[in-house]
Amino acid sequence: MSELIVPSLKSWVPVPKDSDFTIYNLPFGIFQNKRLSPRAGIAIGDKIVDLAVLHEEGFFSDMTQLPHGIFQKDSLNDFIGLGKPITKRVREKVQDLLKEENGALRDHQSRGKAIVTRKEAQMLLPVKIGDYTDFYSSMEHATNVGTMFRDPENALLPNWKHLPVGYHGRSSSIIPSGIPIHRPKGQYKDPNMDTPEFGPSRRLDFELEMAFIVGKSTKMGDSVSTEDAEDYIFGMVLFNDWSARDIQAWEYVPLGPFLGKSFASSISPWIVTLEALEPFRVPGPKQEPEVLPYLQYQKDHAFDINLEVYIQPDGLKSTKVCTSNFKYMYWNIAQQLAHHTVNGCNINVGDMMASGTISGPTSESFGSMLELAWKGTKPVQLEEGGERKFIEDGDTVIMKGYCEKAGIRVGFGEVESKVMPGK
Amino acid sequence: MSELIVPSLKSWVPVPKDSDFTIYNLPFGIFQNKRLSPRAGIAIGDKIVDLAVLHEEGFFSDMTQLPHGIFQKDSLNDFIGLGKPITKRVREKVQDLLKEENGALRDHQSRGKAIVTRKEAQMLLPVKIGDYTDFYSSMEHATNVGTMFRDPENALLPNWKHLPVGYHGRSSSIIPSGIPIHRPKGQYKDPNMDTPEFGPSRRLDFELEMAFIVGKSTKMGDSVSTEDAEDYIFGMVLFNDWSARDIQAWEYVPLGPFLGKSFASSISPWIVTLEALEPFRVPGPKQEPEVLPYLQYQKDHAFDINLEVYIQPDGLKSTKVCTSNFKYMYWNIAQQLAHHTVNGCNINVGDMMASGTISGPTSESFGSMLELAWKGTKPVQLEEGGERKFIEDGDTVIMKGYCEKAGIRVGFGEVESKVMPGK
Repeated sequence: MSELIVPSLKSWVPVPKDSDFTIYNLPFGIFQNKRLSPRAGIAIGDKIVDLAVLHEEGFFSDMTQLPHGIFQKDSLNDFIGLGKPITKRVREKVQDLLKEENGALRDHQSRGKAIVTRKEAQMLLPVKIGDYTDFYSSMEHATNVGTMFRDPENALLPNWKHLPVGYHGRSSSIIPSGIPIHRPKGQYKDPNMDTPEFGPSRRLDFELEMAFIVGKSTKMGDSVSTEDAEDYIFGMVLFNDWSARDIQAWEYVPLGPFLGKSFASSISPWIVTLEALEPFRVPGPKQEPEVLPYLQYQKDHAFDINLEVYIQPDGLKSTKVCTSNFKYMYWNIAQQLAHHTVNGCNINVGDMMASGTISGPTSESFGSMLELAWKGTKPVQLEEGGERKFIEDGDTVIMKGYCEKAGIRVGFGEVESKVMPGK
Repeated sequence: MSELIVPSLKSWVPVPKDSDFTIYNLPFGIFQNKRLSPRAGIAIGDKIVDLAVLHEEGFFSDMTQLPHGIFQKDSLNDFIGLGKPITKRVREKVQDLLKEENGALRDHQSRGKAIVTRKEAQMLLPVKIGDYTDFYSSMEHATNVGTMFRDPENALLPNWKHLPVGYHGRSSSIIPSGIPIHRPKGQYKDPNMDTPEFGPSRRLDFELEMAFIVGKSTKMGDSVSTEDAEDYIFGMVLFNDWSARDIQAWEYVPLGPFLGKSFASSISPWIVTLEALEPFRVPGPKQEPEVLPYLQYQKDHAFDINLEVYIQPDGLKSTKVCTSNFKYMYWNIAQQLAHHTVNGCNINVGDMMASGTISGPTSESFGSMLELAWKGTKPVQLEEGGERKFIEDGDTVIMKGYCEKAGIRVGFGEVESKVMPGK
């Protein structure tokens, strides 16, 4: 808990042991169910607080900045765009209403309407994503890839420790957890082939990532400093950056990944706010050589978030194949945002910026099959369903993430997606 | 006019000689002026036909598929999304109304309201761009760059003739003609430097490109064939893909261009439809080796569009520095779209896909300062304002494009943007 004092809180909504969605968390999402059109909610235990109902029933009546209907939308963009002073107050208000000792909602006639069962809700994309950027900020991942495909002696390229390398990704194919993906088709040319061939990817992979969501827009020409960067970040989600390694290997020179990535990326549907992550701040790795002034920073911008990846073959038991942590990232979110805007590139509320594969220092902490099975040379044994070099049709990939400290848990839930054969 | 017979048309709206906006063209755009809120219009000569007024006045009363208010929006997305059968009919209806012999609008009491002076209008972005992709489809450009930065003997990388190389670009910073840009700041490391430095780019460049606008969405997992591709393309614009060569050179390995491009891209505001370009279809270059079946095509998908770039130093005369043509592209728009979707990546109405720099075979047809001044070794002489290796503060870059054949002209107008010092 470092120097922060977090008061001990309990909710009148039952929160199962090991639930990611404690009263300390209260992430935002967009849900619908058989009865309700898309709307904003906050997760607590196995329930969702329907923010549209709270608003209608006057629970936010002291917040005149909240427009009518702000929670009855199919994205959080307009709400997030109101700014952190307001979104923070809404979360604090809900936290207050959920406290064991507070009867205002607990004993209110609208309680049955305001509290929805999570299992019966369908989670949608929480934001309309304008632009999506993917960084490459784990030194271990970049080193592993450089070792496998280039030169083990010079695995990191010369620019890597001077700037957070990143590239633009495809927004249209970002989907929420639970939606199956189709194995992509494309061109590949293995070293043993004379000419490229076309077909379903033979090397479908996940990449364990996290992504932050931009919470404040900038104008073209403006930059954001590392010091101010977190004011522009609303919160974070888990991010599975699906990758077709064979397509990617053939297409990516000289302009970077394209169809090897653009077929799908999956995210966890609940946005955990930076406020909820506050107790889990930790120092990041020492950066050597010293970075340029615009990338230097004062306070801790790394977060201690435990990350896990599971593979579940069709109808069988799942196996945990990776245990990593977000704190391993060499470049932090403040540096990523400062770098992204230093050239005057404007950002918009709802933009998503992903970390890049989060690999740790040990072989079980590698964040992709490419690294876990080391380019197919060390297949990963599953408890049920044989071994894997890459992901097979019928497999479900599940990513989980949570912070835990001094008995307090703040988690991301999961992002899970099943792989279907190519259409 | 190849085999198409284009009837000779004249409009009662005066169209100056050499106007790009003849009755054969009728491009769509979004405009506003002191009196009018953003709305859709069609350009003719020095005028704009206000489509919102035509709709209100009942000129489209036989088209019940046109919703109320469809033209009174700040983007064309909803209109384009109605589909080509409808957008084509609207354009044909306006063409009919503008014919010299047709008095329906010419003699109507609303004529004064429906016809707006183009000079008094401000042109906005014509579409909300979800995702923007930049291809690299000119063989001459790729060869020039490969020769300068890699190996003249192997200038084209092994994948280049097998697939239209492309990458995701930044949508948020795409702006219409007329908006000045700021010289971007960033990191660069010239070969003579030990460590990277930070500052305003010293090598700011334009890239002469064209872009097409997606007119029909697909679902994730679906692909579009080369044969069907043009059904998914609404029209085209001129595209200046601003590039900071020093930032790009340092950042781009291994994941491609990022901050060297994302600070700004400028487009011409009038979308010329594929229907208007129909008479200017030409065969594209022979593709050798033969491409994979999904990239093969039957009909001509290249277009004979003359392209020009001018540099105008502050307060001085402009100089034409480049004369190129869209027909030089090795990969055509149908192939680009088929490739983009072959992995199941979904596309949305309003997405933009740019060609990559359009360089021709001769040195005056190169589409960037990098190539025209050959990496700074052959400065370009301006008629006024000295010489240029790259673009200087105060310079305005102007791109023009037009088709002309058998006395018929269909043009794009221009995209012009002035470069201001870094903020």
